Amino acid sequence: MPIAKVHRISAYSPDDASGIADAIARGDIDPRGVMAVFGKTEGNGCVNDFSRGFATATLTQFFSRYMPADDAAKICFVMSGGTEGAMAPHWTIFERAEGDGAAGPALAIGRAHTPALPAEHLGHAGQIAMVADGVRTAMQDAGITNADDVHFVQIKCPLLTAQRIGEATSRGATVATTSTLKSMGLSRAASALGVAVALGELKADAITPSDIGDNWSLYSGRASCSAGIELLGHEIVVLGLSKDWSGPLTIDHAVMADAIDIEPVRGAMQRLGFAANGQLSSAERDKLVALLAKAEPSQNAMLRGFRHTMLDDSDISPTRHARAFVCGALAGLVGHAEIYVSGGAEHQGPDGGGPVAVIARR
Amino acid sequence: MPIAKVHRISAYSPDDASGIADAIARGDIDPRGVMAVFGKTEGNGCVNDFSRGFATATLTQFFSRYMPADDAAKICFVMSGGTEGAMAPHWTIFERAEGDGAAGPALAIGRAHTPALPAEHLGHAGQIAMVADGVRTAMQDAGITNADDVHFVQIKCPLLTAQRIGEATSRGATVATTSTLKSMGLSRAASALGVAVALGELKADAITPSDIGDNWSLYSGRASCSAGIELLGHEIVVLGLSKDWSGPLTIDHAVMADAIDIEPVRGAMQRLGFAANGQLSSAERDKLVALLAKAEPSQNAMLRGFRHTMLDDSDISPTRHARAFVCGALAGLVGHAEIYVSGGAEHQGPDGGGPVAVIARR
Amino acid sequence: MPIAKVHRISAYSPDDASGIADAIARGDIDPRGVMAVFGKTEGNGCVNDFSRGFATATLTQFFSRYMPADDAAKICFVMSGGTEGAMAPHWTIFERAEGDGAAGPALAIGRAHTPALPAEHLGHAGQIAMVADGVRTAMQDAGITNADDVHFVQIKCPLLTAQRIGEATSRGATVATTSTLKSMGLSRAASALGVAVALGELKADAITPSDIGDNWSLYSGRASCSAGIELLGHEIVVLGLSKDWSGPLTIDHAVMADAIDIEPVRGAMQRLGFAANGQLSSAERDKLVALLAKAEPSQNAMLRGFRHTMLDDSDISPTRHARAFVCGALAGLVGHAEIYVSGGAEHQGPDGGGPVAVIARR
Amino acid sequence: MPIAKVHRISAYSPDDASGIADAIARGDIDPRGVMAVFGKTEGNGCVNDFSRGFATATLTQFFSRYMPADDAAKICFVMSGGTEGAMAPHWTIFERAEGDGAAGPALAIGRAHTPALPAEHLGHAGQIAMVADGVRTAMQDAGITNADDVHFVQIKCPLLTAQRIGEATSRGATVATTSTLKSMGLSRAASALGVAVALGELKADAITPSDIGDNWSLYSGRASCSAGIELLGHEIVVLGLSKDWSGPLTIDHAVMADAIDIEPVRGAMQRLGFAANGQLSSAERDKLVALLAKAEPSQNAMLRGFRHTMLDDSDISPTRHARAFVCGALAGLVGHAEIYVSGGAEHQGPDGGGPVAVIARR
Repeated sequence: MPIAKVHRISAYSPDDASGIADAIARGDIDPRGVMAVFGKTEGNGCVNDFSRGFATATLTQFFSRYMPADDAAKICFVMSGGTEGAMAPHWTIFERAEGDGAAGPALAIGRAHTPALPAEHLGHAGQIAMVADGVRTAMQDAGITNADDVHFVQIKCPLLTAQRIGEATSRGATVATTSTLKSMGLSRAASALGVAVALGELKADAITPSDIGDNWSLYSGRASCSAGIELLGHEIVVLGLSKDWSGPLTIDHAVMADAIDIEPVRGAMQRLGFAANGQLSSAERDKLVALLAKAEPSQNAMLRGFRHTMLDDSDISPTRHARAFVCGALAGLVGHAEIYVSGGAEHQGPDGGGPVAVIARR
Repeated sequence: MPIAKVHRISAYSPDDASGIADAIARGDIDPRGVMAVFGKTEGNGCVNDFSRGFATATLTQFFSRYMPADDAAKICFVMSGGTEGAMAPHWTIFERAEGDGAAGPALAIGRAHTPALPAEHLGHAGQIAMVADGVRTAMQDAGITNADDVHFVQIKCPLLTAQRIGEATSRGATVATTSTLKSMGLSRAASALGVAVALGELKADAITPSDIGDNWSLYSGRASCSAGIELLGHEIVVLGLSKDWSGPLTIDHAVMADAIDIEPVRGAMQRLGFAANGQLSSAERDKLVALLAKAEPSQNAMLRGFRHTMLDDSDISPTRHARAFVCGALAGLVGHAEIYVSGGAEHQGPDGGGPVAVIARR
Repeated sequence: MPIAKVHRISAYSPDDASGIADAIARGDIDPRGVMAVFGKTEGNGCVNDFSRGFATATLTQFFSRYMPADDAAKICFVMSGGTEGAMAPHWTIFERAEGDGAAGPALAIGRAHTPALPAEHLGHAGQIAMVADGVRTAMQDAGITNADDVHFVQIKCPLLTAQRIGEATSRGATVATTSTLKSMGLSRAASALGVAVALGELKADAITPSDIGDNWSLYSGRASCSAGIELLGHEIVVLGLSKDWSGPLTIDHAVMADAIDIEPVRGAMQRLGFAANGQLSSAERDKLVALLAKAEPSQNAMLRGFRHTMLDDSDISPTRHARAFVCGALAGLVGHAEIYVSGGAEHQGPDGGGPVAVIARR
Repeated sequence: MPIAKVHRISAYSPDDASGIADAIARGDIDPRGVMAVFGKTEGNGCVNDFSRGFATATLTQFFSRYMPADDAAKICFVMSGGTEGAMAPHWTIFERAEGDGAAGPALAIGRAHTPALPAEHLGHAGQIAMVADGVRTAMQDAGITNADDVHFVQIKCPLLTAQRIGEATSRGATVATTSTLKSMGLSRAASALGVAVALGELKADAITPSDIGDNWSLYSGRASCSAGIELLGHEIVVLGLSKDWSGPLTIDHAVMADAIDIEPVRGAMQRLGFAANGQLSSAERDKLVALLAKAEPSQNAMLRGFRHTMLDDSDISPTRHARAFVCGALAGLVGHAEIYVSGGAEHQGPDGGGPVAVIARR
């Protein structure tokens, strides 16, 4: 029976795999079972954040020491830059083992890779459909049949480069934007809507072309998307509950309505058996394996009736402000800041809020 | 009988006094009773933050329309720059009125101005003694006899400029530093220790010269200090409880041991009658008049065993990270972000933590 | 006969008018003759740059000590934020005096204020026409009849706010954008094209609606525009040569084709009598009264075949990079960095380059 | 007879070795002859600049595909972060070939690795002596006997980490500082003084302990130093002229007295046969192979009598300002911005200025 293991390991730099190496040496991690690594790396999380690429290059090489390069290439590395405030740089490693564990339902992990996305589909219905298909495949991989049992979907999606745009244009195709930066937002947007469609949160035919990247009332409460230059298709990791899995872990999720809406997260923790009255106690903190969240400034520059200045600060990117602040709010709840808070939340939770997943020991 | 009134008013720019003008027009504020204004302004909170000076110039001129310039000059303007994360720019206005209110003890406000500080005393025992004296005078002004009844002391202290250093040197005196920036930190440090001495938190003779600005185990749990170029002495505002004051407000304080130590703040609110189980409800939020806090990154670059990167970020000043993050933690507790979180906390609370004052309706 | 005087005065902070006060006290400046002040202030030059408003508020109040408030209100204050690199914060003061000076042609200064711009005209042909009219009026004020004698036109233009958009919408009008930030760029763009039309650089009917803010092959080689929230119409200052003016000053201009194209500027100086072989000598530096320039990163991210990273830096705004770099190139030529280099150069010179005016003693 | 080849190759990201690979494929570069690579990478050039480590990791791996790992490890990689303004990210590759070229004197390259520096010697006379010895060894390697023939010395020097400090302390030794950041400055400072001693610019016994990192009147006009965590000793590259080398290249140097002192650089180019009257022509630009410079803001915050704001900007590090500005000044002279301008110039040229090397075709 499959057992999902999740390892949260501190990183001392974007190329610090020493903690992972130690865990492998101790026998805690079997590298051949690693399906995905989510990293919080300490760059700016924006365009010129090289900490992500450095981390990916480092881990790709690291894991290829333990397995054939082809197998290492299947590991899904999702690097989210930006550890503002006191957010701790760290790796969250998702491993699939086999064995006899406690009877499920338990945390289940599924993975899918989609084919290459034609450039002209990026940001359009074609990408939504491709991602929705991929999520369904990943659910199958995880042994999850009911979409309600899915609690987090991490997508790594492609972007447009001058070369890819040129290739499409030479075929007579038209792309959604010629700006690489904008293509990242559109790709995340369409991917998130694809998750919403696959999970039944939205109907595909209720999404008009102009909704994508614009109508923030449409969203998934369980999607987390990031765009990367290194892939042409999508890498999809589904986290949920399945009775076909055993093991020590469980998962639930919440949707924050705004940047300080931590009570739904407390609720999710309480459903998982935490007391969570006030900040988590030191004992309860050990039960909490990982907290995964998205953060974004609200577009109307207001939070509960008061103005915020994140969108007007020309010295610090809005997403950097938002990650620091939301990490503070969540850390106040859970009692530490080794949390995965990622920016760029188009259609991932409501405007100014975002989905949060809680992975905990049963 | 004196009545303390505290008005929290949103600001739409550093020169936006319109909300104050409206409150005066409505009769909510009598400008002649205004003793102090604490402002959170939306600059970077560091060296080249002109939002503070712009706000001070604007309010000085604004209040002089309501009273003789000499009286307006007595108002203590404390401008704290930096509204990182979703922190809302706002003014907190402290007013002393006369009337019959509910029997005390109630919030009491006292103020003192010290003489000019000789430049050679800045950062040394002479400044500690001068501030301690000033705090005692402000306590008298507030009608507070027991230091335990003091819950927050806001100090505006001087700094060294090339001109002031030159004047001192020409007299044969020696200054603690020739760096204006360092003099700001030393002035805040000695001022905070002066508060600690006045409030009985530390004995003056237990502070060695080398402790000032260096030994962070010595601190006041109630001091909040900022340095300004526009004054030569100190402006001191004491907030506490006195049975000689009546009115609708009360105050308590807490000391955060680190950047996410919000449980003591919850405790202070509960002592003031808040339920505060989880985030404040909308109703309780109305009872909370003002939250005043200090924030700083811990010097060992760790928070509860995990690394933070605030001290190593050459793109964003550490104090900007800390304000965003701590404001997030406190906003998660109180349910909004119109909070006064100020950086630069030398000897103001323990390393990485800081004092927090809660002003609430009784 | 009118005499144009130009005073370049260092500023030690955005609210430092002491140098101007000294010049008035010495009799160098007659404040009642001041027509305009161009300021380089030390903010970030972007959205949240309060150094500009602080400077304008300070100078408005300063000059009203010397003349009726109505007259002070006619002075055109153009504050350009951002003194990156070694650029020196300073004021350039344009004064019109009367007297007998050397026979012209000499530097001539003209000024015009347009009516309020209807919000729906911003960024459209209506704004181009209004600015073109205003430039012609300012030329008349300067006594310049031939457009070729105009060497620099500084425009301060309005922007859209939520309130102005709302007022227009309620009238059934449609605005070009609902984003305040975008409206600043469109207003600068249409204003620059208005200058080009007035000076005969472009024909009004050759500019299509979609050219505005997009087709960078259309530009004025003499326009410099900045948008400000404090006005509803346009303030226009024309600098040129007129034989109806006498006095000690002259002017010429050049267009830089890219960020390091300093040879045309050297050429303009040589036409004005400078040797300028290599960097200006100390003696020639005294002849140079003011250098006014625009700077912007090229949109294709290339400079003479090599990549620049200004557009991809999420930590520093592209305009800040460009001002520092172009100021370095120009300072290498003229031998100091008290230069007015302003960013945001839509249709002001070619993409990546910009107009430069040289004001010098005859 | 040895022939020095220098290849300047554009980089499209910190991990872009494709241009080098192409040059190897074309036969322009023989990888086995590569002695050193100087890189300008597009990070912030400060503490958390991961573009440097990413580049070093990438190139180390890249070259080990062409030679045994031991040989690849001997290549000296000097990565200087920060391509502010329009500075182009690029690699400068120094290769030693053998063959019959034009008779010398020609550009000569020498290299040396010192032993590990005891932590207690960092920033002290011991480091000066060790570097001076290393420079002499590198001169021998280059076949340069007269120190006047040395025109540039690039040093990569170690820094102190907590671990290294702890090791030294446990031996009873005392280190110069416990701050990693400060140790970088002290290491660069002592290294530069070591170069000055080796080249006869300073006498070792004229340098007092307190001069190191403080007395900026002592400097080398030919040193360029950067500190890196990845080494314990020093890597030293000497560039100069030797009649024992043949080949197409030559070198000279200049010392800029301040940030815009480009005339000495023009002078060096003219000594090498450039006309350089005004900006280099397109033809002369092809003769210029590489320009290597150091940049720093002057500590008195003045440039030729006017204030600069680089030291007071809490949003942008002073070194970032300085690199953008100095690159602009030099690019205005040479006609492009693919220039190596490096910050952190302790004792490397006078305060506010710096050494510049010109490598050109003969």
